[in-house]
Amino acid sequence: MLRTGCLLRALRFFSSAPCPRHKPSGRLSVRDALRAQHTSGERVKVQGWIRSVRSQKEVLFLHINDGSSLESLQIVADASFDCRELAFGSSVEVQGQLVKSPAKRQNVELKAENITVIGNCDAKDRGFVHIHTPVITSNDCEGAGELFQVEASSKIKAPEGNFFDVPTFLTVSGQLHLEVMSGAFAQVFTFGPTFRAENSQSRRHLAEFYMVEAEISFIENLQDLTQIMEDLFKSTAMMVLSNCPEDVELCHKFLAPGKKDRLEHMLKNNFLIISYTEAVEILKKASQNFTFTPEWGADLQTEHEKYLVEHCGNIPVFIINYPLALKPFYMRDNEDGPQHTVAAVDLLVPGVGELFGGSLREERYHFLEQQLARSGLTEAYQWYLELRRFGSVPHGGFGMGFERYLQCILGVDNIKDVIPFPRFTHSCLL
Amino acid sequence: MLRTGCLLRALRFFSSAPCPRHKPSGRLSVRDALRAQHTSGERVKVQGWIRSVRSQKEVLFLHINDGSSLESLQIVADASFDCRELAFGSSVEVQGQLVKSPAKRQNVELKAENITVIGNCDAKDRGFVHIHTPVITSNDCEGAGELFQVEASSKIKAPEGNFFDVPTFLTVSGQLHLEVMSGAFAQVFTFGPTFRAENSQSRRHLAEFYMVEAEISFIENLQDLTQIMEDLFKSTAMMVLSNCPEDVELCHKFLAPGKKDRLEHMLKNNFLIISYTEAVEILKKASQNFTFTPEWGADLQTEHEKYLVEHCGNIPVFIINYPLALKPFYMRDNEDGPQHTVAAVDLLVPGVGELFGGSLREERYHFLEQQLARSGLTEAYQWYLELRRFGSVPHGGFGMGFERYLQCILGVDNIKDVIPFPRFTHSCLL
Repeated sequence: MLRTGCLLRALRFFSSAPCPRHKPSGRLSVRDALRAQHTSGERVKVQGWIRSVRSQKEVLFLHINDGSSLESLQIVADASFDCRELAFGSSVEVQGQLVKSPAKRQNVELKAENITVIGNCDAKDRGFVHIHTPVITSNDCEGAGELFQVEASSKIKAPEGNFFDVPTFLTVSGQLHLEVMSGAFAQVFTFGPTFRAENSQSRRHLAEFYMVEAEISFIENLQDLTQIMEDLFKSTAMMVLSNCPEDVELCHKFLAPGKKDRLEHMLKNNFLIISYTEAVEILKKASQNFTFTPEWGADLQTEHEKYLVEHCGNIPVFIINYPLALKPFYMRDNEDGPQHTVAAVDLLVPGVGELFGGSLREERYHFLEQQLARSGLTEAYQWYLELRRFGSVPHGGFGMGFERYLQCILGVDNIKDVIPFPRFTHSCLL
Repeated sequence: MLRTGCLLRALRFFSSAPCPRHKPSGRLSVRDALRAQHTSGERVKVQGWIRSVRSQKEVLFLHINDGSSLESLQIVADASFDCRELAFGSSVEVQGQLVKSPAKRQNVELKAENITVIGNCDAKDRGFVHIHTPVITSNDCEGAGELFQVEASSKIKAPEGNFFDVPTFLTVSGQLHLEVMSGAFAQVFTFGPTFRAENSQSRRHLAEFYMVEAEISFIENLQDLTQIMEDLFKSTAMMVLSNCPEDVELCHKFLAPGKKDRLEHMLKNNFLIISYTEAVEILKKASQNFTFTPEWGADLQTEHEKYLVEHCGNIPVFIINYPLALKPFYMRDNEDGPQHTVAAVDLLVPGVGELFGGSLREERYHFLEQQLARSGLTEAYQWYLELRRFGSVPHGGFGMGFERYLQCILGVDNIKDVIPFPRFTHSCLL
């Protein structure tokens, strides 16, 4: 899921800079190849990256793209050309004859006479171990209060102590459990249901939603973390676009007309990073009148998030280093004087707002101990504090709301439209 | 996850029938190759199935096995041999020199001079669509009563109606939701957490566990269903054994000595099928004294399950066609006269007992309507009955407890040892 090189691939796929026609030695851009009117079998050379491979008994089909066009060029080759290196993301040079395609989908295709792999593309993941974190927990992770409580229904009818002896809740995050596991597996992730009992009917809240959460040991700065988050965003989008192009097309055509460009724009640009302090300065200078006056130390509101993303040219933007007082006890203290911040990061994206939240974790025993004491959580999180006593390492992680991610890349306005059985206040159908 | 050909592969991997030595034309079994003492570079030919592939820049490593040995033979080949068909499960003939291996793991390896793919192995799944079924539900699916109830904790402190307006529970099965989806996607599955508030401290019960559940439209008999279940059991075991041989080895060495033979025995034999009625007859004829006297119409108890599996030679056994009165309302009526049964199936396995449960579903409107009325569930399941009005088709499905499956293939006695954060009565640590 987390793949190297995704940024490059994203750029390759989505950049549609104009290419000059009629290059020497019969070399054509994919765009010019697709536009060719006279396909009387002239010999051409096309270079690009493989977007899909279909290997049949006697024929090999490739789709390649060089960034000159959103559409890809179909290559038809003899099965003898087939090799392991002809895989999604590899760069190739194909020589052959441009001919009229018998298929309806495209006008032309390239009959390959020679295929050279220029650069192999390693499809290996980054060695993250998938952990199943529990749904029922006795922690109320962030002290957020918006929890669902769980009890055996027989005990509700005839109360006689809790089923688990202690009050239990539906998880709001697998983070703390991932942190346990990251003490033995240096890179872990979880993907599963998460719950918030928020009384919200908004178009971006669900009572039950999926999160992908990752935790990385030995990570020491937020830049490394934001890089992984950006890679995850882009490589997953590339996977979805490559594996389900028709489904994405359907969404962009009927549900979200005009949102395709927005996705393209996000994928071909580097995400931005600004500090919370800078963000507040930008908001203060804004000509716009906000319902909530922007002020250092206050939470960013939806209207602020929206403004910041637009201000950044509708490119996703990481906001880092939030005030300590705004964030939960486990985030790492930046020790930066009067404007006291923690190494937290949120990613804001066009149309959706907050998509990722993450931080470096406080791995230093005495800092964490003090922070727990300040929050009145010393007893409840003794086990968590203990993790800092046995081979503690700098580490950090993040969570990404899966349905919001689908909203973002598919351009779907209401979160209830990207999940088969949505659960929200007053509604738990079926 | 569900793959064709797994039975064959299971047989290939696990049969260890003795092979005669010194075959003509230098052909050796994998066992004889591994036992070779004089590796002075003699030319040999080995045939078998690929168990792993590691492709490096200049070298290709294969492990192949022909069923003569649990250990595989390492093939070292020039990277030019590399091709897409050299994949897990393909059958190959390798000619080359048997040489002393520089690695510590094995004594000998085969330096390939020629590799011929005999049979390609298609690794495609069977086109099952993965559905996320919800955790919070307003159904109490089987009327089992052993449910966890869910409520916003703020509402528990100050009751003022339910968060979802109706009482809600943690799912005990995704089946009904899968049935909804199977009306549009002919083959679906889910893999996620499931909950039972059973007051049990047994070595095979958890309050929170994972289930893989599948639902298949247009299936008309239990035999087709049992075939898919058996394939899932065996192909998943093969995957685990191929991808994590060291981990499995560790379990079999330290946690479950002697259980490796049991797994091998399960994988190389066809699972058995007997009817509930036959099962009761077998139990009645048993010389063993049971705590619960076996009787037609009564549930099979743990002691009965254990006896039946042993009686069947410790091969997994499907029990089919249970009394209608023992099973939930949605199972398909066999209309078989006085000993009135439904098309239900459970799979019993050595060491664990019940591992799978499944059935054909009652797709006929009037049968289901009557069954709901008899169970007093007409109102609650009106939406489910309605599914039978719009393009209803014969269909069926099953669920498999994931932790019990791990217990079974790894030989681990206590279910709490195969999950990182076990939840059971009186215990919800972390």
